[in-house]
Order: sequence, then C-alpha cells, then structure tokens
Amino acid sequence: MDQYRQCTTASTKPLHCIVKLGGAAITCKNELETINEDNLNTVSSQLSEAMILGPRHGMDWSRRPGSLEVPTVPDDFDDQLESDSKSFIVVHGAGSFGHFQASKSGVHKGGLSQTLVKSGFVATRISVTSLNLEIVRALAKEGIPSIGMSPFSCGWSTCQRNIAIADISTVVKALDTGFVPGCTILSGDVIIRHLAEHLRPKYVVFLTDVLGVYDRPPSEPDATLLREIAVREDGSWSVLNPKLQDMSKQVEITVAAHDTTGGMITKISEAAMIAKLGMDVYIVKAATNHSVTALKGQLTENIPDDWLGTIIRLAK
Amino acid sequence: MDQYRQCTTASTKPLHCIVKLGGAAITCKNELETINEDNLNTVSSQLSEAMILGPRHGMDWSRRPGSLEVPTVPDDFDDQLESDSKSFIVVHGAGSFGHFQASKSGVHKGGLSQTLVKSGFVATRISVTSLNLEIVRALAKEGIPSIGMSPFSCGWSTCQRNIAIADISTVVKALDTGFVPGCTILSGDVIIRHLAEHLRPKYVVFLTDVLGVYDRPPSEPDATLLREIAVREDGSWSVLNPKLQDMSKQVEITVAAHDTTGGMITKISEAAMIAKLGMDVYIVKAATNHSVTALKGQLTENIPDDWLGTIIRLAK
Repeated sequence: MDQYRQCTTASTKPLHCIVKLGGAAITCKNELETINEDNLNTVSSQLSEAMILGPRHGMDWSRRPGSLEVPTVPDDFDDQLESDSKSFIVVHGAGSFGHFQASKSGVHKGGLSQTLVKSGFVATRISVTSLNLEIVRALAKEGIPSIGMSPFSCGWSTCQRNIAIADISTVVKALDTGFVPGCTILSGDVIIRHLAEHLRPKYVVFLTDVLGVYDRPPSEPDATLLREIAVREDGSWSVLNPKLQDMSKQVEITVAAHDTTGGMITKISEAAMIAKLGMDVYIVKAATNHSVTALKGQLTENIPDDWLGTIIRLAK
Repeated sequence: MDQYRQCTTASTKPLHCIVKLGGAAITCKNELETINEDNLNTVSSQLSEAMILGPRHGMDWSRRPGSLEVPTVPDDFDDQLESDSKSFIVVHGAGSFGHFQASKSGVHKGGLSQTLVKSGFVATRISVTSLNLEIVRALAKEGIPSIGMSPFSCGWSTCQRNIAIADISTVVKALDTGFVPGCTILSGDVIIRHLAEHLRPKYVVFLTDVLGVYDRPPSEPDATLLREIAVREDGSWSVLNPKLQDMSKQVEITVAAHDTTGGMITKISEAAMIAKLGMDVYIVKAATNHSVTALKGQLTENIPDDWLGTIIRLAK
C-alpha cells in the first residue's frame, strides 16, 4: 500500500454504502445469460444519483460488440465536485449467468483437480465475467468509476461456502483511489457481510425483484410485506411492523418451506447478521422510487409512510 | 495459501513456459477494438497442442453476445491425461484495445485524482477487459483452463513504468490449481520479466506479427532477420547468426531511429534481461509453423535450418 500511495494523491474516505444488485433484479431469470437492460440502466442511474454530486461524465468509451460506431468522449471534465462524491461498493449476483455452467459441472461442490469440475469453473467464470463487464459498462456509462473485480483474482476463495481467504486490500486500494469496486458472487451473501464487518458502511442495500421480505412466498395472494425487523444483540430478530402477535415465529414456519434455494429465512438471517454490526440494512425492489430513497440513505432518520421495502436494524 | 490448499488436492508443478501474445498479432492494429479472429484461433489451437497431451474439451459454455444459440457441453471428460499437461502462463498485449482510451486521457502519466484521468482509467480497463475476456474464451474453446487476471486486481501497479507492487500469489494459486493465468498488460514487458524471475519457466515465447527481430524496420527491403543473439552475464549482447562483423553495433545504430514506440532495441533489451536469468527467449511470428515449434520447446537442443525467428540466450 505504501509504495502504491506514493504514486497517487488519494485520501482515505469512509465507506458510505454497500449495494447488492440481486441477480434476479438485473438479469432475466429464465433466459440463459440475458441481462434485464431496462432495470440495469435504471439501477445504474439511481446509483449515480446517490453517489455523485454534480455533473456526470460517461466513462465507457468502447465499441459495443458487433457495432462499428466509434465511441464519443466527453471533453468537459471538472475536478471541483469530485471530492463530494460518496464511497460505494457494488456487489452483484449472477442471475441467469454462471448457474448453468456451475450446475452442469458440480463446481460448487469443489474438487478442482477433476477435469469436468475444472472445465466448469472456467466456463462459469467466463459467463460471470461477461455479466460483470456489462454491469461495469452500465455503471461507467452513468459516470460511476467502476472497477470490476472477481472474488478469485482478489485472492478470495470459499471453502464449504465459508470464506477461506479474504484479502480485502485490493478493494481498499480501489476505494482509496476513488474507484467503485464491483464484485461478482455466486455463493450467497457471505462476501457482503465480510466487507461490511471490515469496512463499516453507514448502511447496506439489497436490490431485489420483489418489494422486500414477505411472510410467505410473495406470489401467494395473502403474502404480507414485512416492513421493519428488529435484530437483538444475540442475533435473534422479530418483526416490528406490521404489528402481529407471534409474527416472527409464524414467518419462520411459513417460509421454511420455500427456503431450499436460499429463500427468505436465509435472506433475513444474513441481513440480521449485518444489522447486528450496527448498520441499517434495506431490502428493496430495484429500479423503483423506493430503491432510490434507500440508496440515498433517506431512511436513517424516519421512514416515509409510502416507502415500501424491508428495513432490518438493531433493536433500540 | 495453506487454508486454500486444504480445499484442493493440487500439487505444485514447475512452470514450463511464459507466452506473450503481442497485441499486433491478435488484434487488427489499425481498427479500433477489433480482434484478429483467425490469428487468435490459430494461436489458441497451437497453445493447446503445446500444453495438453490427449483429448481436449471445450470450456467456453456461454452464449455469444447477440446469439441465441445455447452452448453445448461435452460429456466425455477423462481425468487420465490431465496430470501430463504442461504449466503455462499467457500474457497478452492490448493492440487496438485500450490505447485510444489511455491516450485520450493521459492515464499512463498517472494522476488518478483528476476526473479525466480516472475516467480514462475506467474506460481503458473496460476496453482491455473485453479483449481479455475474448482471449480467455478463445483459449477455453481449445480446452485450455484459462483464468483471466488483470494486473490491477492481482494487486500489481506500476509507478513510472516500473512495478511498484507485484504480488504473484494469485498467479501461483491459479497455477497450483492447474489453471492457466492470462494477464493483460499495457506498459511493456516488465511483468513478464518479473514473472520469469520468480517462477523460472524453461523458456519464454514472444508471439509477434513479424518473423522476429530484424536489423532495421522489417518493412525495408534489405532488412535482415537476426536469428540468434547471445547475451553475456553483464547484460550486453551480440548477434551470433547471421555472422556479420560488428553487427550488434550496426543494429544499435540502425534501429535506434524507429525505437520511439517501443521498437526493436527495447524488445532485444527486455528479452536479453530474461535470457540472462538462464532461460531461452524465442521471438517468433504468431500462427505459423515456426511459432508451434517454439511453443513446443523444440528449439532447446538444436535449431532446425528452416526455422525462422529470433533466439536470445545466454552465451555459452
């Protein structure tokens, strides 16, 4: 780090926010390797609004694959407002990228010495890297100085779904130089918790494809949105709003059934572990008015009545 | 490393070869962000032949951008011959990728705290990453378990064109697990020398768009290919073949004129510094019979009369 700093004039800014772009929010779930362009563009624009004060400059100056159009480069750069920008980390899920290759080869089970597993790892990484590149380009187009990072080349590796090694120095270096690190993950939200623990953002936002966390699968007609969940020091949690008797117990029972693929109990538990660190967690539908409110941190004091989403925070 | 090893059954194999794919050999020099597909495919196939004994399995299972075709996954994986494969590192230049963005913003001069330079860094990285992804896909298609790595996320950074930090642990980790690290570089061949010094391959191959190193610009009618250059312990070098009086001096004078953009003197000097470490360096035209001979290491004992290229090695 010290040698690196000699070449830069960066100053260390506290981390403002970690955002998780859910795979289901930015890709088309049921179409192999297809990005939800509209959502991704809206999300990028909202992120830019939340991060950057003042004019924004496109930072993607590359041709699109197949296009002959030469990119245009803006020429009115101004350094005045740069220092007022807020420090963000963007982590994204894989959605309809990577999973096909991973499941075909059983790569999540480990065993990289086998040819099939190794091939699957390479194939998965190609798929996820192509998604990562598209996300970086979408963010850069909105003036966000995004730097793609794969957990693998950051020196991160998982062992039985826990983080075995997690060197966050590359992420810190990128942040210090004023970049927005953008990571891909396949295996749950462990990386976010790890980053939150070490870099202590003010709040964490999960952007998903539904309004928030419900008491049962949101497709069911009677599903109720859980608007506020309080986490106690011991990690247990209960629903504050809506006020219902023995709600938390009811939730646990109801959602357990649809929890095999990383459902709501997993989501709440992960979010509760982050909230326990002392920062708010917002789970909110991507590309809506609600998500822009959450990204801007306008929920820390009081929650507007018309805001829809789930807030998970330490019990007062 | 130790924690990581617990999750794998990999054994450490000595590095066999470092290959530099020259930007001019794999891209179309004068067309913005255009890959030379024919050359890249031939180079990938030759690399695969040099690395892997036995059957090869495609490892790119992703859709092409814009294509609806669902990729096919081979189903006859065999672990028998895996252990006989040779360990390679592939480093590639940027060619017609990255340079436009870098020069537009002056990013090579540093100063990342300025908005223009930071934007240029992001734009350059997008361009170079898209090239890297295409190269990884081309290698994977030929059965090479290639893992893209950017010098930035490996924790490498350059300071006045020298390496400021170079943590090669990610490269070593990938090699140990049986992957082929594929790096991008913009700034000369310093990274190759660094890797060669620490990982001690048997030989290093530079694939270019001309037959090798000439005594003057190869476009000139009287240009002579320098076939063998001997390097002395003090780093000085002289041309062994063709045998001409005072050739090395003559070369120095003649090529100095076209050396401003990283020409032949720079190339020979860099290669000489690697050869001084005790390993052969071959500079050869990509996608030819000559390059496949070099990649297979068939020049270490004796040089076939019909082989065209430049060999740089320690004087005996």
